[in-house]
Amino acid sequence: MIKTAEQYIESLRDGRVVYQNGQNVKDVPTFPAYKQMVERSASEFYIAMLPEYRELFNVQENGEEYSFAYKIPKTGEDLQRRRNITQTLSRLGAGGSKLTGVDGLNGVAYAAHTMDKALGTDYGKRVEAYRKWCQDNDPGICAAVSDPKGNRELHAADSKQQHKDFYVRIVDRKKDGIVINGCKLHISHSIFSNELVVLPSRNHDESSKDYAVSCAVSCGTKGVKFIGTDSAIAGGGGHPMIIFDNVFVPNERVFLAGEWKFSRLYATSFARYHRLTAATYKHVQLQNIAGLARLIAEHNGLTHATRIRDMLAWFAMYTEMTEAMGKAAALDAKIDPQTGFAQPNHVYTNCAKYWFADNWHQAIKYLQDIAGGIGGTMPSEADWQNPETKPYIEKYLGGVAGYTTEERLKVLRAINGHSSAFMGILTIHAEGSLSAQRMALYQQADWELFKAAARSALNIPTDHPNFKNISRESPWKLPK
Amino acid sequence: MIKTAEQYIESLRDGRVVYQNGQNVKDVPTFPAYKQMVERSASEFYIAMLPEYRELFNVQENGEEYSFAYKIPKTGEDLQRRRNITQTLSRLGAGGSKLTGVDGLNGVAYAAHTMDKALGTDYGKRVEAYRKWCQDNDPGICAAVSDPKGNRELHAADSKQQHKDFYVRIVDRKKDGIVINGCKLHISHSIFSNELVVLPSRNHDESSKDYAVSCAVSCGTKGVKFIGTDSAIAGGGGHPMIIFDNVFVPNERVFLAGEWKFSRLYATSFARYHRLTAATYKHVQLQNIAGLARLIAEHNGLTHATRIRDMLAWFAMYTEMTEAMGKAAALDAKIDPQTGFAQPNHVYTNCAKYWFADNWHQAIKYLQDIAGGIGGTMPSEADWQNPETKPYIEKYLGGVAGYTTEERLKVLRAINGHSSAFMGILTIHAEGSLSAQRMALYQQADWELFKAAARSALNIPTDHPNFKNISRESPWKLPK
Amino acid sequence: MIKTAEQYIESLRDGRVVYQNGQNVKDVPTFPAYKQMVERSASEFYIAMLPEYRELFNVQENGEEYSFAYKIPKTGEDLQRRRNITQTLSRLGAGGSKLTGVDGLNGVAYAAHTMDKALGTDYGKRVEAYRKWCQDNDPGICAAVSDPKGNRELHAADSKQQHKDFYVRIVDRKKDGIVINGCKLHISHSIFSNELVVLPSRNHDESSKDYAVSCAVSCGTKGVKFIGTDSAIAGGGGHPMIIFDNVFVPNERVFLAGEWKFSRLYATSFARYHRLTAATYKHVQLQNIAGLARLIAEHNGLTHATRIRDMLAWFAMYTEMTEAMGKAAALDAKIDPQTGFAQPNHVYTNCAKYWFADNWHQAIKYLQDIAGGIGGTMPSEADWQNPETKPYIEKYLGGVAGYTTEERLKVLRAINGHSSAFMGILTIHAEGSLSAQRMALYQQADWELFKAAARSALNIPTDHPNFKNISRESPWKLPK
Amino acid sequence: MIKTAEQYIESLRDGRVVYQNGQNVKDVPTFPAYKQMVERSASEFYIAMLPEYRELFNVQENGEEYSFAYKIPKTGEDLQRRRNITQTLSRLGAGGSKLTGVDGLNGVAYAAHTMDKALGTDYGKRVEAYRKWCQDNDPGICAAVSDPKGNRELHAADSKQQHKDFYVRIVDRKKDGIVINGCKLHISHSIFSNELVVLPSRNHDESSKDYAVSCAVSCGTKGVKFIGTDSAIAGGGGHPMIIFDNVFVPNERVFLAGEWKFSRLYATSFARYHRLTAATYKHVQLQNIAGLARLIAEHNGLTHATRIRDMLAWFAMYTEMTEAMGKAAALDAKIDPQTGFAQPNHVYTNCAKYWFADNWHQAIKYLQDIAGGIGGTMPSEADWQNPETKPYIEKYLGGVAGYTTEERLKVLRAINGHSSAFMGILTIHAEGSLSAQRMALYQQADWELFKAAARSALNIPTDHPNFKNISRESPWKLPK
Repeated sequence: MIKTAEQYIESLRDGRVVYQNGQNVKDVPTFPAYKQMVERSASEFYIAMLPEYRELFNVQENGEEYSFAYKIPKTGEDLQRRRNITQTLSRLGAGGSKLTGVDGLNGVAYAAHTMDKALGTDYGKRVEAYRKWCQDNDPGICAAVSDPKGNRELHAADSKQQHKDFYVRIVDRKKDGIVINGCKLHISHSIFSNELVVLPSRNHDESSKDYAVSCAVSCGTKGVKFIGTDSAIAGGGGHPMIIFDNVFVPNERVFLAGEWKFSRLYATSFARYHRLTAATYKHVQLQNIAGLARLIAEHNGLTHATRIRDMLAWFAMYTEMTEAMGKAAALDAKIDPQTGFAQPNHVYTNCAKYWFADNWHQAIKYLQDIAGGIGGTMPSEADWQNPETKPYIEKYLGGVAGYTTEERLKVLRAINGHSSAFMGILTIHAEGSLSAQRMALYQQADWELFKAAARSALNIPTDHPNFKNISRESPWKLPK
Repeated sequence: MIKTAEQYIESLRDGRVVYQNGQNVKDVPTFPAYKQMVERSASEFYIAMLPEYRELFNVQENGEEYSFAYKIPKTGEDLQRRRNITQTLSRLGAGGSKLTGVDGLNGVAYAAHTMDKALGTDYGKRVEAYRKWCQDNDPGICAAVSDPKGNRELHAADSKQQHKDFYVRIVDRKKDGIVINGCKLHISHSIFSNELVVLPSRNHDESSKDYAVSCAVSCGTKGVKFIGTDSAIAGGGGHPMIIFDNVFVPNERVFLAGEWKFSRLYATSFARYHRLTAATYKHVQLQNIAGLARLIAEHNGLTHATRIRDMLAWFAMYTEMTEAMGKAAALDAKIDPQTGFAQPNHVYTNCAKYWFADNWHQAIKYLQDIAGGIGGTMPSEADWQNPETKPYIEKYLGGVAGYTTEERLKVLRAINGHSSAFMGILTIHAEGSLSAQRMALYQQADWELFKAAARSALNIPTDHPNFKNISRESPWKLPK
Repeated sequence: MIKTAEQYIESLRDGRVVYQNGQNVKDVPTFPAYKQMVERSASEFYIAMLPEYRELFNVQENGEEYSFAYKIPKTGEDLQRRRNITQTLSRLGAGGSKLTGVDGLNGVAYAAHTMDKALGTDYGKRVEAYRKWCQDNDPGICAAVSDPKGNRELHAADSKQQHKDFYVRIVDRKKDGIVINGCKLHISHSIFSNELVVLPSRNHDESSKDYAVSCAVSCGTKGVKFIGTDSAIAGGGGHPMIIFDNVFVPNERVFLAGEWKFSRLYATSFARYHRLTAATYKHVQLQNIAGLARLIAEHNGLTHATRIRDMLAWFAMYTEMTEAMGKAAALDAKIDPQTGFAQPNHVYTNCAKYWFADNWHQAIKYLQDIAGGIGGTMPSEADWQNPETKPYIEKYLGGVAGYTTEERLKVLRAINGHSSAFMGILTIHAEGSLSAQRMALYQQADWELFKAAARSALNIPTDHPNFKNISRESPWKLPK
Repeated sequence: MIKTAEQYIESLRDGRVVYQNGQNVKDVPTFPAYKQMVERSASEFYIAMLPEYRELFNVQENGEEYSFAYKIPKTGEDLQRRRNITQTLSRLGAGGSKLTGVDGLNGVAYAAHTMDKALGTDYGKRVEAYRKWCQDNDPGICAAVSDPKGNRELHAADSKQQHKDFYVRIVDRKKDGIVINGCKLHISHSIFSNELVVLPSRNHDESSKDYAVSCAVSCGTKGVKFIGTDSAIAGGGGHPMIIFDNVFVPNERVFLAGEWKFSRLYATSFARYHRLTAATYKHVQLQNIAGLARLIAEHNGLTHATRIRDMLAWFAMYTEMTEAMGKAAALDAKIDPQTGFAQPNHVYTNCAKYWFADNWHQAIKYLQDIAGGIGGTMPSEADWQNPETKPYIEKYLGGVAGYTTEERLKVLRAINGHSSAFMGILTIHAEGSLSAQRMALYQQADWELFKAAARSALNIPTDHPNFKNISRESPWKLPK
């Protein structure tokens, strides 16, 4: 069953506890500062029912229709279809309602099945039951992963930490469920979600096994509290802290509870899907940014200059490599023989995320360089509306004939917006920091192959199947 | 005579016309949004009278005391003393009142004297009379240089420009003065200044000789209008547009009026002083940023990690090379034999500006990387004050034991502030864009010396005095 | 028909004129300095007949077998198959015999057919007849593209050029053919080739129409002379100058002769194929380099250090993104509806080439950094053989226990070799300089799409089909 | 007393044991492969006696004349004078004879005096006696610092090292001296030196106290053996391994023998002087490289292009910042109050070294980019001499009219030479690797000052003297 926009709006009225800029938000849908985000989220449900998108966004199975987001990805094409959905939403000014949560669900599902095989546990079934519930109820869903960490040099349970709750943990185990305490940070879109898929952000050890916990929690559950990002930093509730103040989770929603050896697998399985999602939505943003760069270069009369053309070429490369790598990560998926899950190519998905994140500040520098100082010094919209000042602004802030000052100002304002502190931090840290990708690349790259390639070229024998009996001595020799 | 803070405040009430975010500002000193800037500016006058700074900031000459800012720089030590004054003000949270204007005055003075020698004109005396007036009246003073430019591919007078006023120009010449029309952009601090030193932003040619104009204009002059930067982009009036709507300037305040061959000299003479000023105040800011990087690394428990130490080492280098290059530019000053003016080493001053500007976005990336995502997602100050949410924030956003959450949040908020779009744009474009420095370096570097060095090493004879009769053949030879 | 290695060797004895380090090379196959290259080239023919590779390397068509290299690429899979062949050869220490020439042939074929459609000329048939001849004779084939250029600021025919021959040109037109004069530079592998596919390196204009010339020339043709690269710079004949000293080319081998408006199309069509070839063979080399980096890190005991792991992760990314982009360029091929030719995705193929070339010096810096100074200071192989010195070398240049000093020295020597001036220059300039890719990206990126994306996000109406009627206003709105 | 070139030549005939490319070198001065280095070294002595340089290079003291190299540096001007000497030698194609050794001597002297104060030992007197001997005998002198290290993760004495000699150590202590064993790597110029100043390359601990050893060893001492760098990598003996095969050192030449707590001080004191030396000679090389870049841009007709001008501007900056930082490091010397030694500003000297080393590969990339592919593919000198090929080469490899092909080829060959693997490795690793400078910067930067600056700006009280009682609240406040 798929939900209407109106049903979605109503679903947000579940008693959730939300704080925003010092206020206690009584009704999320009508809270003025949240208007844009609410509409954006509801539009995802709205679009999924429009005739021209319905087939792409949903699955018909046994007479039931459910959101494609809740289907198990089995092929590279499934991963690519999800990319199409995400990019369609981005282009239409909608989305986010299932963006991180589905990656959480798929990551947890894969990890749970894999752990079950190894340990004989039975979490996989719980996840699948939960997935079925999602297919039937079409919730907005969010992954809740990042812990506050405290002193990053220390493990979760280290006694030198200021307190025990820098990572979400199990504080009580009852017959019918567990009680968790802690906090998850910068959980984008969570205020507008229905479900939170909680999972560990890192590996743990025996001494910190209570931190190895994964579960699903509804946003209105008792003890769950959202504290939104300062709206002066990021509007619309941003990327809130979620407090889990002794929250009870019934067993059927618990997907990991102490099996610390698998804590890392939960984290990396999620990340593997989620970094692909990152490269997916980012491509739409980068097209936009490349367009802004080109427009302001045209407005300013700069497209004849080689150095500006070089920068614009760079923007094209920045944008298109993000897309090519994302697509490659999806289509070169690895199909896990045990579980049947399709997972993105691990190396490519990390490359894609790293590529756009590592180059973001360069892009912003170029944008600002092409735009000129006026992007940081222009008058306000109110001055533009003021008849005493508008004529001066219109006259002096115009550019090349044929473009309106109004468009130029809009473009400059957009460049200013993309250049914000928030956007820089988001790009680096969302979906895992730059270090996280480097670590993943170090761990996942096929070093045995690379070493065999090097040794083969040096005529040092190697057992690697690709280079066995191969050396760089040319196979055909001149007669002596 | 030097002015008190109170006299300075009063001097701002001269009938100036200022627009800010759609409002017409009636009284600059008491306009709430300007409070911080007004106090900061007044403090410059206040500090200059404090016993511990009075000698550094002022000159005693023939029984008169006047601001050192208005003394002609004659030695490298003079340039360095001005750097000390600027850095002292920055450290004390004051300054700006004479920052750009003195560079404008010195640039114009040098160019006018040089032009007078070449053309037999008599502008130098006017500038010196104006300087004397400044010594006697101690005004806040601003350089007004950047023109809006319109289509950057075209010259000022090109008929393809949308109108003739994209660069400030002389529209009428009267017996006792000239009338100018146009606009100067992003003139930092000008709303809080008394005097504007107008000068050309680039070279001009015969057809555009009316654009070759330099003069001094008081901020309250009829036809002068300030439109402040949108306070959502940069607070406190920021870096306004200044409209010159048919402003009359009496001859004694006109320093260039049509001698287009010297237009570029006015621009570059100013830039040469001003890029040194840039490196000067920037050093204080970079010390601050290096400190923030170190503090947040300590808060986060990261100082043991090699990659974080590498970043911190980079911050130290970024900061200290800015200072070393600034000091080198001042102390290796060139003393012009004709005019006696000390000018900063042209190559070093451009290197210094380029160094800090070109690396700014890297610094911000590193800051954000070390800080973590919370710098872009943290709750507001109001949530910190709210007793329902403060305990959660204090608990979960704490870092290493021994540091308070309050300090950590302040540091994160400061990192967010330094990361703003405005700061990036300011750093790249203020005091000349990156391209402007590269062009200056290309023009000013001693290529003949470099080529002679290369040829000498290749045993190709050269006439360069440093390499005449020198080749890379060792002078002493083994007996055959 | 496909050729044996022995037949290939014999084919080099065609009277070709070759100079190498001051000598006139009498017999290419037995010239000692060319041994490695001759064997490498012959091995390509040898491998193509080995049972395990025969199907991959060749096509069976109408009872005829010919090299897959000479088949018209019609699909992305065809392009990808060619990549497999190239990478197989690289891994086996063979190849090069058809590497550039097939790109030349395909580029010329596509351009000729396209021009024929536009101008009603008939060059396409000549190219196809030549292709048939290649299928039947299986030659080694080389593209000859780069001209010496002289003064790069000037066009080919500019009278300020020192002479008229800085670009290959038609100096005479006879009834049965043309006479060409000039030089092509750094034509890799040409000394070991049979055929040269000559084509223009750039656009030309009416005044320089004689420079718009493309044709096929056999290596032994009268007037063709090869001058090999200094073997101290690059061994094995390297990337010679080819002199065309009034060479006659019969009409059936002439593919462009004065139609200057299409000169650029010949150049870019070639480049489009050839940059994909570049990314293809480079991937094998980068696997090797990534392996060397990892091996020397292990030898030196450095794999525990975060900063070394970060570098190694970067090598993995450098290598794998080259492959992913190459594959994406092939599989996202554009099938030209007029000619049926499959051409690599223009943007991706340029991105792939630029990516590996632009990062090469970074890779070398990292390699050298990890290896340590010994890579530049180690004793010679002869010292290793000398029993007086070997024990010292073996003892002191050993690394981590478990690795031999011999392997460590081989790896260091290989790192030294990859770091050579030649390799840096090759990587930047072969298959088009960095600027050439940036220009291609600037010209080929879909700017209209990017601008429409930006305008759509700003709610500025656009006619672009992808963004028509789309704005970033969320489609679903809260009821007022 | 200062030595003549002839006396220096004779001094090399002291029975030293040298291996080069498998040969045992019988007589260093007449060994053909060493000719250039021998002449270069002898020229240093020759120049020091030329009338125009004698005063700069030498000191007159109490009727004695000795080399300024052997004077204790007491002021920043002393350090700067040494820079002048070094740069003069570089420009004249001479030098190296005292380049590293004097830094070794000064580093050891400072460390020994400092240690004596702390421990009551008496090594300082020995160093001063040795210095006096140097003043009297004017030897060529070399620092011997880098150890082979083996497994870099392990300390010198770790039992997992393959053997105990990866760092030079004391293997026997006799009444009149010590016996040392081990190897020092890449000791530039040592084959042409008279004296080796041995000192530790790193810190040691109690368990590895035998590795804390510093002493002076003459090149002809029994047990000392030199194995030169492969001349295919670096000509002229390069940067040899020096084997110390149970070498006896008399007590008066022993300057550290087990006091492990001071091992690091010996290493860092040397490095502090030596990184300044690095920046000093490098400036002359960078002038040369900037000249090559400019010349080839002119030859190629590229100086009109903005992107080439940007690269050239970068070369000017690269070159001049190296000089400015070197000069700043010298003139901002720290005068140690205990010993009177002038030491370069620690932060600036590390910045200077890091700056040129970290940017080297960028410089090479730019050089190669401007030069074009021909730098890696040009024919040999022998082809230039061959009358059959010279006309073609002269014609086709010419550039802009007015420059000879011969000069263009020389410049290209020089660019090729500077681009070598060896030069890259030398630049990164000589005088300490990039990591070594980053570590030094991390340790030496004034973090307390930076943190106080940051806290002051946040209105967090601090005890730092520069910021006590200072906050960023403006000192003057508007009346309420």
